[in-house]
Amino acid sequence: MPDRFPVTERTRVVREANRAVYDRETIYRVLDDAFVCHVGFAIDGQPFVIPTMFARIGDLLYFHGSAASRMLRGLASSLPVCITVTLIDGLVLARSVFNHSMNYRSVVALGQATRIEKLLPGRWTDARQPNERELQATSILKLPLTEVSAKIRTGAVEDDDEDYSFPVWAGIIPLHLVAGEPQRDDRCRSDIPTPAYAFRFRGGR
Amino acid sequence: MPDRFPVTERTRVVREANRAVYDRETIYRVLDDAFVCHVGFAIDGQPFVIPTMFARIGDLLYFHGSAASRMLRGLASSLPVCITVTLIDGLVLARSVFNHSMNYRSVVALGQATRIEKLLPGRWTDARQPNERELQATSILKLPLTEVSAKIRTGAVEDDDEDYSFPVWAGIIPLHLVAGEPQRDDRCRSDIPTPAYAFRFRGGR
Repeated sequence: MPDRFPVTERTRVVREANRAVYDRETIYRVLDDAFVCHVGFAIDGQPFVIPTMFARIGDLLYFHGSAASRMLRGLASSLPVCITVTLIDGLVLARSVFNHSMNYRSVVALGQATRIEKLLPGRWTDARQPNERELQATSILKLPLTEVSAKIRTGAVEDDDEDYSFPVWAGIIPLHLVAGEPQRDDRCRSDIPTPAYAFRFRGGR
Repeated sequence: MPDRFPVTERTRVVREANRAVYDRETIYRVLDDAFVCHVGFAIDGQPFVIPTMFARIGDLLYFHGSAASRMLRGLASSLPVCITVTLIDGLVLARSVFNHSMNYRSVVALGQATRIEKLLPGRWTDARQPNERELQATSILKLPLTEVSAKIRTGAVEDDDEDYSFPVWAGIIPLHLVAGEPQRDDRCRSDIPTPAYAFRFRGGR
């Protein structure tokens, strides 16, 4: 497995190309830090973008695809998709309107999604296993990670040289997705301990 | 302006229809709470989904559209897009694998995007105004908010009746996007006070 994804005509970052990343490890870390992806597919030229939970396992993305799955039913076996994952790290307040920006990490994966028969691991060993009806009602799709790019902005404000004397506050507002205290369900017996993974996200992911 | 968006064939929520929202005020509140949208467009059936900053002004969405804008250049005057905004509020750890979910608020807006000539207000009055080169380099697109739906999940775990006795911890992990202390740019004069809006997001948006 090569360390870097190949740059294709479709994944070459055109604007702010200095932010482009094709390194596999970096891209996988962004994917693994996220809870939600945005799944894009098109019907007769009209795009649809649906947020959904997902997981990466090896070189495959698995995602919950109710809407996309409906599309698949009418098709042969695969659906062209774009899966985009975005993590927001901060607001960049520059001196000029033009240079306002965000710090972020995003991944764009292109390819053909197909349906799978089995569900995902994860909290699998703890929770009640799916029954036949549930397995049929759940549409999990998978996308091989072959045509993938990331775009990452970090660090400070970047203004044009002549603007640094402009008398306005400039700086970064850091943003983090942080988890609060796990809230036990009202109907969960109090003698069942809160599992370690429920605290896993405290203090930011 | 009607209080609710009309339900069209394309915006009717099929799966978990009880989470569907068409109320204009609720939808606008979700949009105004977000920093980033995901812009979907298609080229020869291949969808692309690009994260970008956006703003709602009245019944229009304005978004920074570098990639979509390149598409527009080759077209007559408008581009079919889907703009999706997603806010993540929590992880839902149910007793059954099947009922695991998230608390979230998402908005999907469909329509034809067109390019505009002028930029956005906002931090406008403070910052250095854009010059001719910048105005030309910046592609802002707009989308009228006409075909719009939201999907919102809040509240507790929802398990099947027969699963409530299953001996596993169940509950919600709340998630919030939280802003940290504003970080003054190294080249920002220390006698320029930090403006109030830089603290606006502290404690979560």
